[in-house]
Amino acid sequence: MKTALMRHLPILTWGRVYNRTALSNDLMAALIVTIMLIPQSLAYALLAGLPPEAGLYASIAPIMLYAVFGTSRALAVGPVAVVSLMTAAALSNIVEQGTMGYAVAALSLAALSGIILLAMGLFRLGFVANFLSHPVIAGFITASGIIIAASQLKHILGINAEGHNLFELVMSLGEHLPETNWVTAIIGVLATGFLFWVRKGLKPLLKRFGLSDALTGVLVKTGPVVVVAATTISVWAFGLADRGVKIVGAVPQSLPPLTLPSFSPDLLGQLLVPAFLISIIGFVESISVAQTLAAKKRQRIDPDQELIGLGAANVGAALTGGFPVTGGFSRSVVNFDAGAETPAAGAFTAIGLMIAALALTPLIYFLPKATLAATIIVAVLSLVDFSILKRSWDYSKADFSAVLATIVITLGFGVEAGVSAGVGLSILLHLYKSSKPHIAEVGQIAGTEHYRNILRHDVITDPRIVSLRVDESLYFANARYLEDQIQDRVAGDKAVRHVILQCSAINDIDFSALESLEAINSRLHEMNVKLHLSEVKGPVMDRLKRAHFLSELTGEVFLSQFAADRALSKSAVVPGDIEAIEGVTEGTEPANGQA
Amino acid sequence: MKTALMRHLPILTWGRVYNRTALSNDLMAALIVTIMLIPQSLAYALLAGLPPEAGLYASIAPIMLYAVFGTSRALAVGPVAVVSLMTAAALSNIVEQGTMGYAVAALSLAALSGIILLAMGLFRLGFVANFLSHPVIAGFITASGIIIAASQLKHILGINAEGHNLFELVMSLGEHLPETNWVTAIIGVLATGFLFWVRKGLKPLLKRFGLSDALTGVLVKTGPVVVVAATTISVWAFGLADRGVKIVGAVPQSLPPLTLPSFSPDLLGQLLVPAFLISIIGFVESISVAQTLAAKKRQRIDPDQELIGLGAANVGAALTGGFPVTGGFSRSVVNFDAGAETPAAGAFTAIGLMIAALALTPLIYFLPKATLAATIIVAVLSLVDFSILKRSWDYSKADFSAVLATIVITLGFGVEAGVSAGVGLSILLHLYKSSKPHIAEVGQIAGTEHYRNILRHDVITDPRIVSLRVDESLYFANARYLEDQIQDRVAGDKAVRHVILQCSAINDIDFSALESLEAINSRLHEMNVKLHLSEVKGPVMDRLKRAHFLSELTGEVFLSQFAADRALSKSAVVPGDIEAIEGVTEGTEPANGQA
Repeated sequence: MKTALMRHLPILTWGRVYNRTALSNDLMAALIVTIMLIPQSLAYALLAGLPPEAGLYASIAPIMLYAVFGTSRALAVGPVAVVSLMTAAALSNIVEQGTMGYAVAALSLAALSGIILLAMGLFRLGFVANFLSHPVIAGFITASGIIIAASQLKHILGINAEGHNLFELVMSLGEHLPETNWVTAIIGVLATGFLFWVRKGLKPLLKRFGLSDALTGVLVKTGPVVVVAATTISVWAFGLADRGVKIVGAVPQSLPPLTLPSFSPDLLGQLLVPAFLISIIGFVESISVAQTLAAKKRQRIDPDQELIGLGAANVGAALTGGFPVTGGFSRSVVNFDAGAETPAAGAFTAIGLMIAALALTPLIYFLPKATLAATIIVAVLSLVDFSILKRSWDYSKADFSAVLATIVITLGFGVEAGVSAGVGLSILLHLYKSSKPHIAEVGQIAGTEHYRNILRHDVITDPRIVSLRVDESLYFANARYLEDQIQDRVAGDKAVRHVILQCSAINDIDFSALESLEAINSRLHEMNVKLHLSEVKGPVMDRLKRAHFLSELTGEVFLSQFAADRALSKSAVVPGDIEAIEGVTEGTEPANGQA
Repeated sequence: MKTALMRHLPILTWGRVYNRTALSNDLMAALIVTIMLIPQSLAYALLAGLPPEAGLYASIAPIMLYAVFGTSRALAVGPVAVVSLMTAAALSNIVEQGTMGYAVAALSLAALSGIILLAMGLFRLGFVANFLSHPVIAGFITASGIIIAASQLKHILGINAEGHNLFELVMSLGEHLPETNWVTAIIGVLATGFLFWVRKGLKPLLKRFGLSDALTGVLVKTGPVVVVAATTISVWAFGLADRGVKIVGAVPQSLPPLTLPSFSPDLLGQLLVPAFLISIIGFVESISVAQTLAAKKRQRIDPDQELIGLGAANVGAALTGGFPVTGGFSRSVVNFDAGAETPAAGAFTAIGLMIAALALTPLIYFLPKATLAATIIVAVLSLVDFSILKRSWDYSKADFSAVLATIVITLGFGVEAGVSAGVGLSILLHLYKSSKPHIAEVGQIAGTEHYRNILRHDVITDPRIVSLRVDESLYFANARYLEDQIQDRVAGDKAVRHVILQCSAINDIDFSALESLEAINSRLHEMNVKLHLSEVKGPVMDRLKRAHFLSELTGEVFLSQFAADRALSKSAVVPGDIEAIEGVTEGTEPANGQA
């Protein structure tokens, strides 16, 4: 009982040993993260199609709930780029942006996503996330980064443009380009350029001035705050809002409101699939950040408990005016680097953001949307990494095609189609690969008890015996292939009397494969050939025994391939008996009796 | 060029050695099969919702085309029960039965199915059929048999009833039961009873009279012909058609007509998925019959060429007034047992059926539909086999649940839903199983170079070394699980300095797993632990080399687990050195430092 409570409430573990050092470290980290999160939260709300305050709200309750339920010490939960994009994509098909219904739908999406994550955590279904292969994730994030950047260009240029894939976005941008507001464009381009320079050029510069790494890091992170302040003041001072620069405007000064998601079955039905995809993508992003940071301090992450932590965070977001959230990469790394020791740092960050929501919102009245767009563009372009194409091409063409398909379909048809196609293709390619397993005909290496591929090694074989090693577990996708291969090998070769399957690489035999083995056994029997097995693993053997296959087997089960060969053939040679070897090899032509 | 031609036209192979013995054997087999096929063809046309002559037409051109392109010597192609049911199910949603459009849609379905099969054959995509696992096929055929039998009860009772799943059928039969035509019901019940008796009771009886097995077999097969003759004559002689007995009626006396499928993109679009499912199910049924019969004579079946043979047969059916066909089990076995030596037997059967279509159709004017329904019911109930539930339950709960889901969903929601759900569930269960592979921590068995599971064997371990054997190929579905397991094992155990992955059971490492290995490597590095690999298979090693993973690896790659242990630990003991063993075991507590 107590262990279960400790397991599901990690706060009970770290809370009991919390001390003054941890407190001061956590407070310091919280201050840095708060400053960084303010512009980021506003920007991701913009990306999700919501009013800017929603971004602040989505960062407060979720952080606190994760601090109670999550297992990572350094993870910072809140709105992130890809999930915000997916939110916008999911909602735009259903409700119109800017309406009250849109905000309610965003709450509902967060609620659904939270319930899905909680359910997956309680039923320990975290393995579902494993179906997202690395190539699919890498391709998806790169493509999403491009779409996000393209979607923000309209704010940089001060025009209207719509679209949920690259094609639509580019067409729409092209159409509206003549309406560009030049004041907005100047602010946007300058802000973007400055932020890029902060990322790439400022760091070496500061280091040349002899600043410490830590200080350099902090200064670089304040780049967005500087841009926000500078552009807000410019717009206010020069009255640029009257020159057509779109600004954030009035943001309510309040704590996160209590909100309720919609209970309309119709709306929830439409949001179910997007909520599922958002949950999975968010979980994968979050868990890999958490694992990476935990490893640095030899800490443990419990994936099932992480699902509960993220689920609670999303339900929290739904009840406090937010939208779907997850553990973000950049904010978590900042939190970790700033010295956060426990999830209490997250709680302090939440308090910082509450103060911002209460007191600082009037200051961002004149903040241009172009500035927020610039911070988004600079953040997401660092996610774009086409090197995955080259690396996967070098490693495996199957993985490469999964990457390429994910990128192309995400760019061309949007995020949901892209990730679904990527997952589907990965599964198909995996099944395809294992559906034609490597099957080696093996023979004895003279002087040893080893059996190796007859095509690669100089081995001793007996024309009456065919020994096959299957380098794959046997299951439905390859069972029939094995039938075909054995029939092909034996049908034309009248000399064959025994087939030995060396099962050393077979980790499992499912029911389909069992039926295939039975079919192989009885078909070989029709040809007057016996089927034997060797080197069957313990768990596989237990199964076969239960199925009575062994009583039908025309041959025997041998402990080793050598034992099988020795029992069935006079040509199997005990190591060292060199005369016998020479006597035999003469008589053993490669038994390849294809007509 | 010549080989390619021989490969794609198997007739060139057997045709050149055709002789008089083969001819007389083939003619005899053709006679028997023709007699058996006449009632069967009419009945399956009825099942597919088509006029009876369509069954004859669907048996003529397809048999001939398969004789040219197919690789099985004994396979008999034509309408079969399950495919006819699927045809009816596919068409009923789109066009009304009995209309001209229905027949055209059936042609189009055959054409699409033929094109799909041809394409799969040309692009060697036969592996797609492997996704239909044995449990799914067994469950599907059993459930289809029940639905087919239920769907024929209306003909036995002389009432109207509709439905494409068991629930609908039973409800509809119950509703119309009061309308039962008693004359029809008597004919139907007697015919069904007689046919069952022929199957079960006649054979032992004839044998008791001392008849040979062969003759017994032939007499049993003529059962349907006897019933057809007896009921037809009764209906004619006693004028039962006027008493409400539904009869086949006028059937055109003609050779198969030349027909064209529809080219409406709308219709073809609707038929695409059903055509795909029909192709796959038909191919699987056909290839397993072909393999079984080929094995008896040590002949070879080329699955890709079989696709071409079946594809040609279906295109032929589409052009000659037929509907989707495949290699049938019962007719092929009869053909084989009757001594058919080459596909020429099929061609002769086609000629026999042509004569029947030209000359014999007036004789079946008074044939009651109830008789045809009786032959269908008796044929399909032999397909129903619930023992698969017991057998799969005993063997594996995962396979059992695939069987159960397929049966329940086929019965409850129809054939397409059933087979799709079965395939989907099989794939998910397979991925789930391999997503949590068996990972054993291993240690050295004293006095040997063998390393076994520390939980099952008394082994020597070194607290500074964790040796893990993963019993599964590494790919996206289990890559992250491995990350978690290693992190869990190492994070809490401060003594660990080395992790060795014993890769003997790893047949493949995909790109996701490679990234996971990289993550494991760098996370272990953060914990000041080195990662080593041992017993990496050749092809896996080649891949890893290409990926530069080996240059990042903090540890080494060892040829054997023993070599790794020996290099890293002073406690790895050379076999025979018994003193050393004793000196070490004292110091090696199970290194299970979980907090």
